[in-house]
Amino acid sequence: MFTSKPIEKIVELFSTLPSIGKKTAQRLVFYILRQDKDFALSLANALIELHEHTLYCSTCFNFTDTDPCIVCSSQTRKSRLICVVEEPQDVTAIEKTREYKGMYHVLHGTLNPLEGIGPNEIKVRELLQRCTTEVEEVILALNASVEAELTIQYIAKLLKPLSITVTRLSRGLPVGTDLEYTDEATLARALEGRVNVQ
Amino acid sequence: MFTSKPIEKIVELFSTLPSIGKKTAQRLVFYILRQDKDFALSLANALIELHEHTLYCSTCFNFTDTDPCIVCSSQTRKSRLICVVEEPQDVTAIEKTREYKGMYHVLHGTLNPLEGIGPNEIKVRELLQRCTTEVEEVILALNASVEAELTIQYIAKLLKPLSITVTRLSRGLPVGTDLEYTDEATLARALEGRVNVQ
Repeated sequence: MFTSKPIEKIVELFSTLPSIGKKTAQRLVFYILRQDKDFALSLANALIELHEHTLYCSTCFNFTDTDPCIVCSSQTRKSRLICVVEEPQDVTAIEKTREYKGMYHVLHGTLNPLEGIGPNEIKVRELLQRCTTEVEEVILALNASVEAELTIQYIAKLLKPLSITVTRLSRGLPVGTDLEYTDEATLARALEGRVNVQ
Repeated sequence: MFTSKPIEKIVELFSTLPSIGKKTAQRLVFYILRQDKDFALSLANALIELHEHTLYCSTCFNFTDTDPCIVCSSQTRKSRLICVVEEPQDVTAIEKTREYKGMYHVLHGTLNPLEGIGPNEIKVRELLQRCTTEVEEVILALNASVEAELTIQYIAKLLKPLSITVTRLSRGLPVGTDLEYTDEATLARALEGRVNVQ
């Protein structure tokens, strides 16, 4: 189909990436070809360095280039507050809000008995080890899935004897949504979780 | 925003690619991180080889890894038929139809007086040099834009004295479309270009 093997090869590789189909892959490759050679080289170098210089923080298990990571080694963040998330990209999402100034803990998944993912397959034990008497609150900021719910219940049960406040993200109407277009489940949760008008 | 410089760098680079926003770039990078290190390395190598081993065919100006390219050097394709396209990806699109067995000529753009792109900025002269007495037909398979129209008229005028048949792609209803949802311009062209029922 292509008149050049190197193009064919990289289109093939690009199209294995999530949300990149064959057509998009092709468009990307032709775009890269039209750029300066340096662009392709800097992309190649960044890819080589990516695995080379990325490690897991031994405290929070987020991706980092220094151990402990900049969050865990920060002197200004609240070390008594731990926000538990499923994946490293969730840390980025919460950091973007600029509202949270505590620590993180990345589980790298959720419990999923059907797929054989138990507490030992995700970073639950490591979370427990961090939950010393100094920790005041653990925020379980997991996604809205059945597996996440199971994980929340499991961790909450483990933390109960330690007299640590365990919280979860509130459910309700997303900002800017019309009632009319909100799905029933979300609306039911918003009703259930209604708060006093202050 | 990111807790790792190498991640930040590659997200930055990826998000300069067309149709890749910051969020998609981030998803791609985290996907690559979750794969084997070899995947990132093979992607890096493919990027390095891309420019290294890709050149322009000196006959048709398509991207190729051999000169002349496999189309131009083919013994089975019709050398008397030249299909003129704007960009290398158009060759891929036409090859996919498996209907065309002639040669190609990539212009690398269209005439655009407003942006200062004249005949010397695209491969028009090179096309004329190929249009010897042996060539029977030149198909102008350009996009449906004002600039492409200008380019078609310009090339047709140049080829007229050479007694070469100059054709263009037909305009009409795309396969599988309902009349009801077809835009006026396309419908007008389909009416104008109506053919006898056989």
